[in-house]
Amino acid sequence: MKKYVWLMYSMIAGWLFLAQSIEAQSKFQDVMQQRGLSEQDAIAALKVYQPSGKHDEYYVFASGGQSGQVLVYGVPSMRILKYISVFTPEPWQGYGFDTDSKEILREGNVRGREINWGDTHHPALSETNGVYDGQYLFINDKANARIAVINLKYFETSQIVVNPLFKSDHGGAFVTPNTEYILESCQYAAPLTNDYYPMEAYQDTYRGGVTFWKFDKEKGRILPEESFTLELPPYMQDLTDAGKGISDGWGFTNSFNSELYTGGIEKGFPPFEAGCSRSDTDYLHVYNWKKLAELAKDAKNVKIINNHKVIPIDVAVKNNALFLIPENKSPHGVDVNPNGQYIIVSGKLDTHASVYDFKKILQQIDNKEFVGKDSYGIPILDLKKSLHGQLELGLGHLHNSFGKEDGIVYSSLYVDSQIVKWDYKNLKIYDRVNIHYNVGHLEAMEGKSADPQGKYLIALNKLAIDRFLPVGPLHPQNNQLIDIGDKKMELLYDLPIPLGEPHQAASIRASKIHPEVRYPMGTNPKTNQPHIGKTLAGEEHIVRKGDHMYIYATMVRSHINPEHITVNKGDKVTMYITNVERAEDETHGFTIDHHDIHVSVEPGETAQIDFVADIEGVFPYYCTEFCSALHLEMMGYFLVKDPKKDYDWSQKSKIKNLSPAELQEEYKKITANNEATQRVVDALFAFLKENQASKYPTVNNLLEDAKDQYAKILPEKEKATKAYKENNFENAILLENMAWQYLIKTADSAIRAKDLLVNTLASPKSAAAKRGEGAFKEGGCSGCHVVGKVSSGPDVTGVLKRHKNAEQWVAEYVKNPESKFQEPYMKKLIEFFNLKMPNQNMNDQEITDIIEYFKWVDKNADFF
Amino acid sequence: MKKYVWLMYSMIAGWLFLAQSIEAQSKFQDVMQQRGLSEQDAIAALKVYQPSGKHDEYYVFASGGQSGQVLVYGVPSMRILKYISVFTPEPWQGYGFDTDSKEILREGNVRGREINWGDTHHPALSETNGVYDGQYLFINDKANARIAVINLKYFETSQIVVNPLFKSDHGGAFVTPNTEYILESCQYAAPLTNDYYPMEAYQDTYRGGVTFWKFDKEKGRILPEESFTLELPPYMQDLTDAGKGISDGWGFTNSFNSELYTGGIEKGFPPFEAGCSRSDTDYLHVYNWKKLAELAKDAKNVKIINNHKVIPIDVAVKNNALFLIPENKSPHGVDVNPNGQYIIVSGKLDTHASVYDFKKILQQIDNKEFVGKDSYGIPILDLKKSLHGQLELGLGHLHNSFGKEDGIVYSSLYVDSQIVKWDYKNLKIYDRVNIHYNVGHLEAMEGKSADPQGKYLIALNKLAIDRFLPVGPLHPQNNQLIDIGDKKMELLYDLPIPLGEPHQAASIRASKIHPEVRYPMGTNPKTNQPHIGKTLAGEEHIVRKGDHMYIYATMVRSHINPEHITVNKGDKVTMYITNVERAEDETHGFTIDHHDIHVSVEPGETAQIDFVADIEGVFPYYCTEFCSALHLEMMGYFLVKDPKKDYDWSQKSKIKNLSPAELQEEYKKITANNEATQRVVDALFAFLKENQASKYPTVNNLLEDAKDQYAKILPEKEKATKAYKENNFENAILLENMAWQYLIKTADSAIRAKDLLVNTLASPKSAAAKRGEGAFKEGGCSGCHVVGKVSSGPDVTGVLKRHKNAEQWVAEYVKNPESKFQEPYMKKLIEFFNLKMPNQNMNDQEITDIIEYFKWVDKNADFF
Repeated sequence: MKKYVWLMYSMIAGWLFLAQSIEAQSKFQDVMQQRGLSEQDAIAALKVYQPSGKHDEYYVFASGGQSGQVLVYGVPSMRILKYISVFTPEPWQGYGFDTDSKEILREGNVRGREINWGDTHHPALSETNGVYDGQYLFINDKANARIAVINLKYFETSQIVVNPLFKSDHGGAFVTPNTEYILESCQYAAPLTNDYYPMEAYQDTYRGGVTFWKFDKEKGRILPEESFTLELPPYMQDLTDAGKGISDGWGFTNSFNSELYTGGIEKGFPPFEAGCSRSDTDYLHVYNWKKLAELAKDAKNVKIINNHKVIPIDVAVKNNALFLIPENKSPHGVDVNPNGQYIIVSGKLDTHASVYDFKKILQQIDNKEFVGKDSYGIPILDLKKSLHGQLELGLGHLHNSFGKEDGIVYSSLYVDSQIVKWDYKNLKIYDRVNIHYNVGHLEAMEGKSADPQGKYLIALNKLAIDRFLPVGPLHPQNNQLIDIGDKKMELLYDLPIPLGEPHQAASIRASKIHPEVRYPMGTNPKTNQPHIGKTLAGEEHIVRKGDHMYIYATMVRSHINPEHITVNKGDKVTMYITNVERAEDETHGFTIDHHDIHVSVEPGETAQIDFVADIEGVFPYYCTEFCSALHLEMMGYFLVKDPKKDYDWSQKSKIKNLSPAELQEEYKKITANNEATQRVVDALFAFLKENQASKYPTVNNLLEDAKDQYAKILPEKEKATKAYKENNFENAILLENMAWQYLIKTADSAIRAKDLLVNTLASPKSAAAKRGEGAFKEGGCSGCHVVGKVSSGPDVTGVLKRHKNAEQWVAEYVKNPESKFQEPYMKKLIEFFNLKMPNQNMNDQEITDIIEYFKWVDKNADFF
Repeated sequence: MKKYVWLMYSMIAGWLFLAQSIEAQSKFQDVMQQRGLSEQDAIAALKVYQPSGKHDEYYVFASGGQSGQVLVYGVPSMRILKYISVFTPEPWQGYGFDTDSKEILREGNVRGREINWGDTHHPALSETNGVYDGQYLFINDKANARIAVINLKYFETSQIVVNPLFKSDHGGAFVTPNTEYILESCQYAAPLTNDYYPMEAYQDTYRGGVTFWKFDKEKGRILPEESFTLELPPYMQDLTDAGKGISDGWGFTNSFNSELYTGGIEKGFPPFEAGCSRSDTDYLHVYNWKKLAELAKDAKNVKIINNHKVIPIDVAVKNNALFLIPENKSPHGVDVNPNGQYIIVSGKLDTHASVYDFKKILQQIDNKEFVGKDSYGIPILDLKKSLHGQLELGLGHLHNSFGKEDGIVYSSLYVDSQIVKWDYKNLKIYDRVNIHYNVGHLEAMEGKSADPQGKYLIALNKLAIDRFLPVGPLHPQNNQLIDIGDKKMELLYDLPIPLGEPHQAASIRASKIHPEVRYPMGTNPKTNQPHIGKTLAGEEHIVRKGDHMYIYATMVRSHINPEHITVNKGDKVTMYITNVERAEDETHGFTIDHHDIHVSVEPGETAQIDFVADIEGVFPYYCTEFCSALHLEMMGYFLVKDPKKDYDWSQKSKIKNLSPAELQEEYKKITANNEATQRVVDALFAFLKENQASKYPTVNNLLEDAKDQYAKILPEKEKATKAYKENNFENAILLENMAWQYLIKTADSAIRAKDLLVNTLASPKSAAAKRGEGAFKEGGCSGCHVVGKVSSGPDVTGVLKRHKNAEQWVAEYVKNPESKFQEPYMKKLIEFFNLKMPNQNMNDQEITDIIEYFKWVDKNADFF
């Protein structure tokens, strides 16, 4: 019997041990059942969910395709954090709507023509020793052959360069291991000059190539004068990758039209798609960029086209810097593995992936061992001798991204709609996962760098079909998150892309990115230098120079200075606007109605707008960012009068004015109100000081902001007092009102600071106290009792100290309020509040829990 | 003893019963621990997660603020599904980049000036009897006083109207209960004409108002000629709501500058924010729109300004159609409750919410019981007599959204950063929840309609500060999802807004929205009529009319017809492009490099572009949407030659041609390859037919698409055979290649259809079979064995039928492969594959599980 009892006891202990997690489990099961989630779904949910305020592990930068932008999203939560404007105007950011950003956008003009969009394809992060350094992001525009530089200090586009030779690019941007060069390969062959040649001249006059853009990391700028291009045959160059490790100094570019097919479906010829995929093989271009960079320095090696240095094919060949290797029919991706020895070429129209061995390639080059030359004189290496091996992956193999473990690579299969995990050294397949649907690029974390991180993988799928709620004939695409932390891949999450068509994504650990959250006061973010229009508070002014009006303005919660601007019809107007806020996130926007102007002015930024005031009228201007409770009042009037017109207008209004006595009465009311508000603010500051708010950086930022606002109160009050003494009651009232606004703004920041601090400092609630809080709120107590404050009923803080045997007393009182109404203290309370507490019919458990909650309240009483 | 045993047994049963959920629980706990999730976090995760492919319950339409767009997201997953372009060009959608969408955008020109952005604030869904009907969405542009109509059949902007009087609006769009009118109230007062008047003339010449835009639900269009405006004093009208139920026919608009303050900080006056908040009360405007609409029909009641009917203040007053009621200092939101009796006005600068009772208002109006008139002669009702009551909510009360239960409303507190749940009938507070940070609008599901749904609430917060990974000085805003299904509100999710500043959101049950997923062939989506440039396959052609070239083109996977277009420099070019796909989601994009042109052409759509060919050169054009594996090849050349120039170019290339024998050899190869591919395709079709694919709509759509592609194969093959017979081997090869492309495209759609069908039909795996699948894949088996196919090893399908006592045999073989190598059948296999299966050191449990997996495979063998 004893052992049964022992067993039973141990089981009871087990039961108790499990009871708590079973309770949680039962809640989980309830929600899972209600929402139809399987266990696998639930695990996926837990793997991607970021609780409020918690940051993601990785940044992902994805191209926006035809949206001309770059998307930034967080992994694993798959929440899109920002669209960075690059080739397209975007008014929320003010990009292309203010003078400074327009200048950058207009760097991208092609032959004098404004281009207001781009087709972004391949984002590349700047590298140091082949590893991402988190400083810059580069992106190409396939449609117009351009490259943009994004400064990751501010997440802003800082430069656009136009390729002087190519009419389109696809294989860009790719960087060399120390970001010496950004590689941009041509896509559709065309004459490198701007001349017309007929299609029949394709083989002779159309060319492709790779441009090497010199990048200066210190300045954060591409240096066009130090850049050059390698001319290539019109094979339709496609994707590119730069060598690294043992292949550092080399570049690899594939192609899909070694057939030199020129289409013509309208003339009865089969279309490009048939002609370009006719041959069994195309060419991988292999070139030594370090040697080419040396060659480009000598004028005799280059021809100049459109003011740009071009190394002709024959010069590259003569100097042993350019070679071809056959690759299976119309491949797509070309990816160099982390140590640089292997180059994987995707079999777009072939079920095989080809793994080339750079050592084998170099050996043939060193031995001058070629199987022939192409029609343009470029030596061709033997395919089989260059290969490490091939592996059948499936239909529509497009791209590759490397895992953390040696030899592991993930590949996308467009037609099979799968991701394949395989070993490119041992040529073995480990796993497959279905995606939805038709994956193009894929990105394992930092999977194209020399230091891949594994863990997560993104499949950038092209078609979503029915995966999401329907939104009309233009569907979002589907970027899927896959867990690759274990042997078996696991699909976690579907992210619809609401704007744009991401092609490629580049990911980086969050710890490597260090953006600024505000600008040094008066900065032009496009140059990162002080703006010529920098204006501090108190320096606002308007200057006329002939027919050109210059307005130096500031914005701060919640007014714009100046509030009236009157100009003549036909005047040129330049307006400089400085956001003089120091608080994080206190962005202001500025527009003048009917003028097609919008700027976003971040804290510390100075923005510039230029326009001609060519229509008469009265045009409100206002802050477009909801920046404070007084946001709507943050406005002014831009008035355009016609100097040729005679305006006759006479005062007709009969709005009555207040008498001096009435004004004095109003003044007293507002000052009394201000004193009351002041006491609230002082209490907030005292609380923040006592609890050492300044020790916590984010809390301290808010406290500093509150202090900034607070500092503005005294000058307003002094002006008010002065006005009052001068019997200008009208102004005294308004100035006291202004002081009140600053009190409210001080309170706004200070309340946020206090809430953050309380969250940081308050002791955690026990399970019972949490239940008690629920019962307190749901049971009706909170209708009259507010913690920390006298409301329709007394403050419950300290109730456990106000009575003898307080816990018992409170329990009895809640259970049966009438039983205590005759106690003298209670009689007074009832008289004071003119209310008797009703019986809320709490059960014993609820009462016990509420007392636990009151204990927690008392323990943390300082926070209320 | 017996009862101990009984107890013990029952506990063991309990244990066993729990064992499975405990196993799941332990997995949950592992992930929670790794990711630092609390139990509350985990519950929230389960409440918001949508498994791959599952649809959300609600659509939310949020304004994009200064982005000029509308965001659509799903609830509860909080995934943004689409940005709908409205007032801003956007190239992904081609909006503003093609001729038809430019026409809509240009409807929004103001006084001849192009406006390329907007400040969208308040989306409104069309209503029938006060309930959302899912047909249209309306949105205002505060910066330029415009209203846009979005057709929810296609999720496209279909109309923009410019307010002829106002310079800005804020209180728009709001609809009357049957969408008879869309209400747009002015914000910043200005002269209603386009004339200049100085600030001193504010009281006399500046005016506000409310415009009533007549809407025709059948046509889906605003009818400007049947619309009119009510003139109002320059009180800075703010938000508006239309009455419903017992207040149907009435409208309510609040204001924040009854002080008629005109600012002038640059002259030493206190700023607007001080002057506009000086008085203790402002005015709620109450008007009878049904009466006003009648009045507007008679010319003697209106004055015409800018070709638009305006009812002057005195006419409205004389006809008992306009009244004022005081409201607490500078309020913000005004919201009519579901049955129309109560109107809640938010106390932006007052801690109280005011609940007005429409019955009390009407009684005073009927009794002509007024406390006075304002300076403009409008009768004023008594505040206290109009109020149902007031309740102290907290600091910065901005907006309200109604819950499902009678009397329940949720309100946002901007300064306190909270949502408050309260009872506007009994004036009691039930619950508060902290949000992060500074909430503006909020939206409980369908919370502004006559039929609120409760369940979820969105807080549209203005500041995010540190909630997300930093992305530079311009932060995303934070829209938070709150569970309001229980008594106590629960914060579930933070959604960063990557582009734009949402102000208000309108939500609707998913079941009420029925968008089309493709267009009838040749549709102009901007008019929903057949396009004048509609072109079907085979109808492509180019016409010159003088110096104007008309190109009728089609796009289909994966070619554009025509592929060559040659024009003279200076020619005008009109191009019509029809996407002749019938498959859902098979969007194509079109651009001509260097021409700032981009269109998105959805299946069935015809798009038009117009431009002047003013620069010489060779410009590739291509499909910008990755539409198939042959996407890169979907291109052509736009050639612009200068008719004044003499082009001399002579053939220099020496590309060698293949001999007839070599060509015949190539032809044989490609036809053999096509036959092999054909067999794969036939097998796919057979599978789909056998399993009745056509019974499942989404699968059937894919099958139909596959058949469409398949139908194109035979004509190509016939042309190829003909060419071959004519000894045109070159073309025969190309045409067979084209046939191959169609085979691949057929396979692409058919594979997706098969995968979907298998997911639908396959029997679910047992837990053991799932484990077995894991062991099979992770243990190395899948390196050689592929289910359903012979790979480096035999197909495992049917292995349990190929051997006697198969389960035992397989178990032994896996445990000790060598033991079976001498069996005659195995000897043959080893010879065939030239491989011996290695010992993967599986344990007994894994082996048992793998056998369970094999059973599942056999049961579903038809699907592989």
